[in-house]
Amino acid sequence: MDRAAAARLDAADPLAAFRDEFVPTDAIYFDGNSLGRLPRRTIARLGAAVEQEWGRGLVRSWAEWVELPERVGDRLGRVALGAAAGQVVIADSTTVNLYKLFGAALEAQPGRTVIVYDADDFPTDRFVAMGLGHARRLEARTATPAELENVIGADVAAVMFSAVDYRTGEVADIASVTATARAAGVLVVWDLSHAAGAVDVHLDEWGVDLATGCTYKYLNAGPGAPAWAYVRRDVQGALVPPIWGWFGQQDQFAMGPRFEPAGGVRRWLSGTPPVLGLVAIDAAVSLLEEAGIQRVRAKGMALTRFAIDVADDRLSPLGFSVGPPRDPARLGSHVALHHPEAYRLSRALIEEAATVPDFRPPDVLRIGLSPLTTSYADVWDGFERLRVLAAGRAWERYDPAPARVT
Amino acid sequence: MDRAAAARLDAADPLAAFRDEFVPTDAIYFDGNSLGRLPRRTIARLGAAVEQEWGRGLVRSWAEWVELPERVGDRLGRVALGAAAGQVVIADSTTVNLYKLFGAALEAQPGRTVIVYDADDFPTDRFVAMGLGHARRLEARTATPAELENVIGADVAAVMFSAVDYRTGEVADIASVTATARAAGVLVVWDLSHAAGAVDVHLDEWGVDLATGCTYKYLNAGPGAPAWAYVRRDVQGALVPPIWGWFGQQDQFAMGPRFEPAGGVRRWLSGTPPVLGLVAIDAAVSLLEEAGIQRVRAKGMALTRFAIDVADDRLSPLGFSVGPPRDPARLGSHVALHHPEAYRLSRALIEEAATVPDFRPPDVLRIGLSPLTTSYADVWDGFERLRVLAAGRAWERYDPAPARVT
Repeated sequence: MDRAAAARLDAADPLAAFRDEFVPTDAIYFDGNSLGRLPRRTIARLGAAVEQEWGRGLVRSWAEWVELPERVGDRLGRVALGAAAGQVVIADSTTVNLYKLFGAALEAQPGRTVIVYDADDFPTDRFVAMGLGHARRLEARTATPAELENVIGADVAAVMFSAVDYRTGEVADIASVTATARAAGVLVVWDLSHAAGAVDVHLDEWGVDLATGCTYKYLNAGPGAPAWAYVRRDVQGALVPPIWGWFGQQDQFAMGPRFEPAGGVRRWLSGTPPVLGLVAIDAAVSLLEEAGIQRVRAKGMALTRFAIDVADDRLSPLGFSVGPPRDPARLGSHVALHHPEAYRLSRALIEEAATVPDFRPPDVLRIGLSPLTTSYADVWDGFERLRVLAAGRAWERYDPAPARVT
Repeated sequence: MDRAAAARLDAADPLAAFRDEFVPTDAIYFDGNSLGRLPRRTIARLGAAVEQEWGRGLVRSWAEWVELPERVGDRLGRVALGAAAGQVVIADSTTVNLYKLFGAALEAQPGRTVIVYDADDFPTDRFVAMGLGHARRLEARTATPAELENVIGADVAAVMFSAVDYRTGEVADIASVTATARAAGVLVVWDLSHAAGAVDVHLDEWGVDLATGCTYKYLNAGPGAPAWAYVRRDVQGALVPPIWGWFGQQDQFAMGPRFEPAGGVRRWLSGTPPVLGLVAIDAAVSLLEEAGIQRVRAKGMALTRFAIDVADDRLSPLGFSVGPPRDPARLGSHVALHHPEAYRLSRALIEEAATVPDFRPPDVLRIGLSPLTTSYADVWDGFERLRVLAAGRAWERYDPAPARVT
């Protein structure tokens, strides 16, 4: 293996030109799965929204803005989620959407006494599930997605899982897990934050009922951009969000006395739509639309294979190991590179080598491979910088991880 | 009264120069209480946040961004809310904050069976209160703020009110109403959406416990910018939001097994802070800081007095009437101009006279007087255009209000 191999893969990459669609960075950036890079077109689109739509159009622009949550949701659904129109809406944060969806799922099974979630899931998911369980005095039962069949039963009220494990990168078998829950009469809320925009998702085909996810990772919509929510058409009429929002009202401007939830997915709106975030999502999704999610997924898997091969060949002699899992088809678009000094090596990469990975306790360098922005040469060069730092015991120049992250 | 009177008032206005701090509009804009105008400095500030902080800094910028919800909250609290540091945070939407605050207030009084809200409040407030009441099978009791003393009792669990009536403009006696509730052991959640940035608010001094409000009206932070939440220091330890958010976790990056709410106001954060919205609030609040809320309130009252005088003098012969209330000290910063053809006149103003009011059923032209952007000449000229349209029965050229808004 050598750098020329990376260069050949880049030369043959059908998505290579998309790298020029993003504002350049001075770093090798392996953290697009935490905060995706800035598309050039987003600058112009946000500028127009601010200066023309807000600045000149003022309140009159609401005639267009009011449609954005559904219009951008439909586009995101079609481009990245395998969702036919009328099932995706942009609203709130992942946290708040998880709360609304899981709360509604629980309300649909009032007699049952148990919630199921993954004890190793991202804190956002666990905390929302635990909070709702606490308020309803439900018992918590933990399982990974693969273990659901062992814990499901007639006492389970609702299930919450992430589609991609934020540490290992493992992709859940969404269709099978959903079917297992469905057979027990239970709805699963899926968090696709680490999947959307990287994995080819087929929510309609897989029979998913409820899902949400952020837009600032592989969807490149910017820091704190709003989240999306998917509610399968079949269950839309039966579920009501716990937060009764004026923007989810059937006849919003009648200012009527009672909450009458809108038909369709619009009832999942809460407050005033965050226009700048919506516009940024729309701009970023247009890039993904041009690239095509199948090609994005194919490149993500190829980058993953290449990263694992380079790590095995050149980093494993220095104490690094990858996975499990290691099969690109079973991974999202990041790899977990284990090393006892992962924390201090992450500091060295950022401060000495202009390379930005992520660190996850206890020993993971998380290498995000964002298909539209990461090149094979990035992988080669970044891992080479890491190899040199590790060979030189660069970690000795840094303090150990603070207690709070170990 | 004549136009020269308006010109003299503008010449003497100590805040007149602030009009140049905003992007010009081609309209006479009386809807700054729905969507405030665009400050020029916001363009540069958003541009830097997008191109430098996101585009170049990428995930490294979170070192600064993570402090924004509290830093901007403290500044907003000091400048506009009469709140000492450590009690205001920027998060979510008004809807979601109302839900979190009212939910926590109810949880603090588990044995009580009644909620109180205003049947004429904005739908956002009513729906959130009704939804939480429904989930807990509580009885709803309605009252205006002034009527609270007639309905309060040992059975009341929590109260929700707006500080300024979105139709009449009437300002509630926040201190007195809060004290009435407090004497019954009850917390009031105040919605200050139509007050913040226009009225001189003194949350600390008035003994307010819980409040929230939007930032896109008199605070000029842009369409769908995030909301703020105020939680009085005295009650911070006792209340936990119903939405357990990872950003509200004590030791966030420890990724620990249990939700342990952060001390202070930070526990009211839910998901990832919306960075662009935070930056837009910060830029807009800097303008208010320079103007000073006392001067802003003084100009708002003077504009209100002038608008009522012009309406009495020149519009009342054509069937218009103002208020009640009519005392500027009892009004926020908008006036309700009643006319049987208010809806169709609002259409005519927008389409024929480049003048943008708001319409509120059944018969109100809502005239927002945004102290930093509205001039006395705006009032004179806008009302003159309205007078000419009404004298010419311009409404006859428009369809009646659609059923949904009557």
